[in-house]
Amino acid sequence: MEIQITKTTQAKTKPNENELGFGRLFSDHMFLMEAVDGVWQSARIVPYGPLAIDPASTVLHYAQETFEGLKAYRAKDGRILLFRAMDNFRRLNKSCARVCLPELDADFAYEALVKLVGLERDWVPSQPGTSLYLRPFMFGNDAKLGVDKASNVQFCIICSPSGAYYATGLAPVRIYVEDEYVRAVRGGLGFAKTGANYAASLLAGVNAHEKGFSQVLWLDGIEHKYVEEVGAMNIFFRFRDELVTPALQGSILPGITRQSILTLAEEAGVKAVERQIAIAEVADRAAAGELLEVFGSGTAAVVSPVGELVWGDKSIVVNGGAIGELTQKLYDTLTGLQFGVVEDTHSWITEV
Amino acid sequence: MEIQITKTTQAKTKPNENELGFGRLFSDHMFLMEAVDGVWQSARIVPYGPLAIDPASTVLHYAQETFEGLKAYRAKDGRILLFRAMDNFRRLNKSCARVCLPELDADFAYEALVKLVGLERDWVPSQPGTSLYLRPFMFGNDAKLGVDKASNVQFCIICSPSGAYYATGLAPVRIYVEDEYVRAVRGGLGFAKTGANYAASLLAGVNAHEKGFSQVLWLDGIEHKYVEEVGAMNIFFRFRDELVTPALQGSILPGITRQSILTLAEEAGVKAVERQIAIAEVADRAAAGELLEVFGSGTAAVVSPVGELVWGDKSIVVNGGAIGELTQKLYDTLTGLQFGVVEDTHSWITEV
Repeated sequence: MEIQITKTTQAKTKPNENELGFGRLFSDHMFLMEAVDGVWQSARIVPYGPLAIDPASTVLHYAQETFEGLKAYRAKDGRILLFRAMDNFRRLNKSCARVCLPELDADFAYEALVKLVGLERDWVPSQPGTSLYLRPFMFGNDAKLGVDKASNVQFCIICSPSGAYYATGLAPVRIYVEDEYVRAVRGGLGFAKTGANYAASLLAGVNAHEKGFSQVLWLDGIEHKYVEEVGAMNIFFRFRDELVTPALQGSILPGITRQSILTLAEEAGVKAVERQIAIAEVADRAAAGELLEVFGSGTAAVVSPVGELVWGDKSIVVNGGAIGELTQKLYDTLTGLQFGVVEDTHSWITEV
Repeated sequence: MEIQITKTTQAKTKPNENELGFGRLFSDHMFLMEAVDGVWQSARIVPYGPLAIDPASTVLHYAQETFEGLKAYRAKDGRILLFRAMDNFRRLNKSCARVCLPELDADFAYEALVKLVGLERDWVPSQPGTSLYLRPFMFGNDAKLGVDKASNVQFCIICSPSGAYYATGLAPVRIYVEDEYVRAVRGGLGFAKTGANYAASLLAGVNAHEKGFSQVLWLDGIEHKYVEEVGAMNIFFRFRDELVTPALQGSILPGITRQSILTLAEEAGVKAVERQIAIAEVADRAAAGELLEVFGSGTAAVVSPVGELVWGDKSIVVNGGAIGELTQKLYDTLTGLQFGVVEDTHSWITEV
């Protein structure tokens, strides 16, 4: 399919790279295409602007929506790099299948992404740690109120120049272990990157913020006993020389950063294990001096060190509240790969 | 707050009342207002038409959205009647609190609804069983990608003339007992009328349709053992002289029709009980000849008789596949109340 390009006649002024924040500013163009009864059509790049959406549209009532998040990084030599971008489109297709949205041709979606980022090349910032955040997303868009999968589907990619997640370097966060609210349960939508999981997480996140915590640690929806995710990130525990993360059993997101960390940890000589982890085990092993590091992983933060977990009346302080050695090493390696400083031996990096 | 009215200059042709269907056609006007940081403003009735929504809007990514559904009925004498409409706005507020949307002044929302329906009076059809379906809904509408509750919120009411749910009278349906997919779990969003629950239900619904079933019966997300809801309706079982429905424990919708049925059943001398119901109990009591009737309840169908439940390799045929006596009586009483034929002794009916 040909991608039609309509360039803006009113290019925006580029923002100050020191004041980007996250996801608040958008570039000049966006990619759009629609599926009608599963057939994709009208692929085009057009000026960024509002979508005309019928008030009865499926997405506004029944949350038939999926998305992805990835970044375009500017290397020191000016090249624009993407990290495992095809994996994002493969995962998007799995999310779509779960909520009855049509799949994309991942190769074509990648081509569209590269074309868009190529056009927005000047929107990829160059200050350390900054990037152009890319948000492909899809939603059901029938103008009817019957509960059913939509025949008309919208796919978009928008671009948002974003600041460094850590303005002043990696900083450990305090986490609240949530034992009342549930993000997802097996048999539900937890593994899919779909609005429902985020809607479910909002209230607990707001409550945790008010109590002075950065994020919540989600427990499983059945027994409220096993660790699932932290905020919107996957989570890792280093017990002695073993790096452990919850196994993928349908209720947590199969993170691309998570998968990369499992690979990099093994290469660094650390045994990486996916299994069930009871929050009680975390507390017990912390008490026994065996919990050396805890960190979250995701596209936004890459790696987010955890300094303290508060579970009911228990406080689990990790590594004296300081950044762990493996945490720092994984962060440095991943960001080094993404910015083209570390050699890419896995074919994870593609150039725009 | 004053409600500004801008009338359409291009009134639509009224549709054929025999071809209305459900939720496909919309009236000439809609009600809109916005909240900014929790303060509602700009209440207005305007011509029905698309909303300009930023591609980064919260609702398109994180499903921060709630809705209600109710109907305006035309009585034989031409009066336009609403059924327990204030209860819809009270429930909407509970849904909103769960997904961090601001509450409405329920009295004002009711006033807006009445004003809108008054203006759209000619859109309330008069054929038996038809009605003007009313859909109040709210969504987070910040143009930013950070996962957070939105500061900008949209509230709308749209109106859809809808045909009789049962074109040829009440008809029992076949139900598939879903034992893999889960709609909601305690601690999640199940009690709220929010997109997430519908997104979670789509795939199982599509699968059930393909197997020739009308709806799925949801089991609890923890043990996959207890009955929760049927499709997007509450469910009732008549065991001998007792009418039983699942208790509200956070994972099922507190239906207004459900609540009305509990009241009407007691008045009809049938003991109405809210408690946990294992699907195994349903099978066992059916085998013992004690399961006399099963029906769903909701705004769309009012009462939907169930003729057969298929649970794994078990078929549970209810009342020989015919409509039960109590089912029919409750349907007749409720629709009689709604259309102004049965005397309203509960102050459930208000007139537009």
